[in-house]
Amino acid sequence: MPPSPAPAVPAPDPLIRRHRTADAVLTLTLDGAPPAGREVVVRQLNHDFLFGCIGFDLVPLANGEPPAGQGDGREDGPQAQEGGPAARAEHLAGLWLDLFNSATLPFYWGDFEPVRGRPDTERLRRAARWFAERGCAVKGHPLAWHTVTADWLLDLPNAEIARAQVDRIRREMTDFAGLIGAWDVINEVVIMPIFDKYDNGITRLCREIGRIPMVKMVFDAAREADPHATLLLNDFDMSAAYECLIEGVLEAGVEIDALGLQSHMHQGYWGEEKTLGVIERFSRYGLPLHFTETTLVSGHLMPGEIVDLNDYRIPRWPSTPEGEERQADEIVRHYKTLLSHPSVRAVTYWGITDAGAWLGAPAGLVRADGTPKPAYEALRSLVKGEWWLEPVTLTADDGGRVRFTGFLGEYEVAVAGRTAVVRLGEPGETAVTVAL
Amino acid sequence: MPPSPAPAVPAPDPLIRRHRTADAVLTLTLDGAPPAGREVVVRQLNHDFLFGCIGFDLVPLANGEPPAGQGDGREDGPQAQEGGPAARAEHLAGLWLDLFNSATLPFYWGDFEPVRGRPDTERLRRAARWFAERGCAVKGHPLAWHTVTADWLLDLPNAEIARAQVDRIRREMTDFAGLIGAWDVINEVVIMPIFDKYDNGITRLCREIGRIPMVKMVFDAAREADPHATLLLNDFDMSAAYECLIEGVLEAGVEIDALGLQSHMHQGYWGEEKTLGVIERFSRYGLPLHFTETTLVSGHLMPGEIVDLNDYRIPRWPSTPEGEERQADEIVRHYKTLLSHPSVRAVTYWGITDAGAWLGAPAGLVRADGTPKPAYEALRSLVKGEWWLEPVTLTADDGGRVRFTGFLGEYEVAVAGRTAVVRLGEPGETAVTVAL
Repeated sequence: MPPSPAPAVPAPDPLIRRHRTADAVLTLTLDGAPPAGREVVVRQLNHDFLFGCIGFDLVPLANGEPPAGQGDGREDGPQAQEGGPAARAEHLAGLWLDLFNSATLPFYWGDFEPVRGRPDTERLRRAARWFAERGCAVKGHPLAWHTVTADWLLDLPNAEIARAQVDRIRREMTDFAGLIGAWDVINEVVIMPIFDKYDNGITRLCREIGRIPMVKMVFDAAREADPHATLLLNDFDMSAAYECLIEGVLEAGVEIDALGLQSHMHQGYWGEEKTLGVIERFSRYGLPLHFTETTLVSGHLMPGEIVDLNDYRIPRWPSTPEGEERQADEIVRHYKTLLSHPSVRAVTYWGITDAGAWLGAPAGLVRADGTPKPAYEALRSLVKGEWWLEPVTLTADDGGRVRFTGFLGEYEVAVAGRTAVVRLGEPGETAVTVAL
Repeated sequence: MPPSPAPAVPAPDPLIRRHRTADAVLTLTLDGAPPAGREVVVRQLNHDFLFGCIGFDLVPLANGEPPAGQGDGREDGPQAQEGGPAARAEHLAGLWLDLFNSATLPFYWGDFEPVRGRPDTERLRRAARWFAERGCAVKGHPLAWHTVTADWLLDLPNAEIARAQVDRIRREMTDFAGLIGAWDVINEVVIMPIFDKYDNGITRLCREIGRIPMVKMVFDAAREADPHATLLLNDFDMSAAYECLIEGVLEAGVEIDALGLQSHMHQGYWGEEKTLGVIERFSRYGLPLHFTETTLVSGHLMPGEIVDLNDYRIPRWPSTPEGEERQADEIVRHYKTLLSHPSVRAVTYWGITDAGAWLGAPAGLVRADGTPKPAYEALRSLVKGEWWLEPVTLTADDGGRVRFTGFLGEYEVAVAGRTAVVRLGEPGETAVTVAL
């Protein structure tokens, strides 16, 4: 019999089990004795893996403001949901919180501090607190970037731009310490000094001092401002350019906690082979990988010849039934691919809803009218289905032991009306002792 | 009157004059007195600018061997030239030496030392001496590269590969010290650790230790072996990746004497705007730029979708009359663009003849039958015409002074049967005293 052709990529599910699940043996004591024969209820509380999404859309809700774009009473597009704008915002928040455990909040300098000295701190603090109170990790994006940076930098000489940049990092990271535990410290450094769409202070500075001193400057400031924060370098350039930048930055002694990899796929799903190739190349540095900006559209694809996605502006980019089926299929394939590699620790989807989506793309998991697309249900059926332990009732053996297999994360264990929280932090066989 | 549109790129000729020519005032003495009223003949001997070409084709001639591919008496294609293979080789050498002043010789490890411990040193020494005796600068290419590297490296562990690489650099640079003054120390580092066409020792090593330590290792060895040599980093990747690599290498303290930029244009002439853009980006580091590998074809263009030029293999790639006209036009535009920017110090054309050209491409300035193409004549009319001072007879004034404007380089000055050589090394007004 001729051999069948080898698959291009390994099946993800066994790898996901290997890298993401633990076979737990809990040894319980109840008032010091094994609760032999008692019922033990185990239920999953959270994933260690960061299933993230931008939380930009929920900043108004968290602040008690009218939903964005609806404050003037006009309706933007169809509204299938019942109730007024506030009810619709609550509904969207419900969908968000039912799927994600990590929020990215916007710190674009030009929006955050359009007038020097008047930062939007309080509003963002309320948003960060809203997510934190609901059990979400929060990340700020970005502290340094040439796009949407503050226009007023253009009035400063480069040395003062550098000082303002460092001061800005110190201020935000101090103001949000304890609320925001991770930051995209600097974004898109590969293109930063040669960005030529328009003049801006950050490109000017980076061109003068060079990429590596720029990264070192902002990371030093960030590390000093909050030594406990997770600091990311983030880029969209998945070529050898980013590798070369990373190697230069690491050689220069900059401590990076995680590498941010963007994957806006407006021009089409990368596919498993490319995705695994990217992961393989960037996992060489031994650092956690975060897929920081992930997008899959549920409409037509952006033409491949567009180099800067920002150049694609069309009046209407509809979500279509066949596009929604494709998006649902691709999101499952993409998330499975990401979780199949142990270096990947986080993925942030770039926008739950089509309403107000970047480039007007139908990139949301929820339509503009508030109804979930198939991709929402498909992703949820992984995160809170296939990869989630529904509450299970076990019986403790004579030694007070129960066994279960679950995804890495936190679990509540309940016996006789008492509860404890345990964390499965490493894949494979795990022994945990629980005194109740 | 509406303003006419601004040209995309500045006219090169005034810039070439500004950056490449000197207005010389020679103050002569003949036996201590000004040779007032005497005739002074000035003739150019050489260009400071390195107009280079690979000298691979002339290695057999320099060694008294039958010309490559003709040793068995078979004819390879049409032969318009009179005489046998030896005469034709001499004819090609004459064309070569009439146009170029700088030769690149092949040091591909796999060809140079196919059996460990048996390097092709003597043959290459004779070739280097042949060019040096004819007034040419000589460069070796390359000392470290993953392509055409020695197969026997695959039998070694990485630490021994590193040792063999360093030893190889020391050996070649010592053996050729005084003959070869410049080296492409390492080639194509951007892709080196992720090159995946076939397994090889250099990719293995670079993947393990990283790009910057790899570059540092080979440059340290090269600098130590010959402190007087010009050491180049060379790459085909003109994207931000090469910038990031360069910045990392410079931050790590590696001293690079010149940046090598490849420009194989089998897929079409870059045009002035792209060329100037590349020069602008890579001139930011304040290092001399060498266009180390320049190709323009005189036949059909390679399709743009080919990513690795080596993947394009066709049985026959003819030179065509219209292709030859295009090549001649483009070579003039390209060389004028390069000389218009002061950072560019050298350009090496990748092959004088179509016979045996890389990829079988009609990239030569001379056809396979030995006749010059229009591009040869066009380039010669610049290098030895528009940019060259034909012997000129001047008359010394009362102070013994003569004035002329010439391209930077060496000139012979003759008065009353005596001669001296002067060098114009800086553009603009230049005063030189010559005692005869």
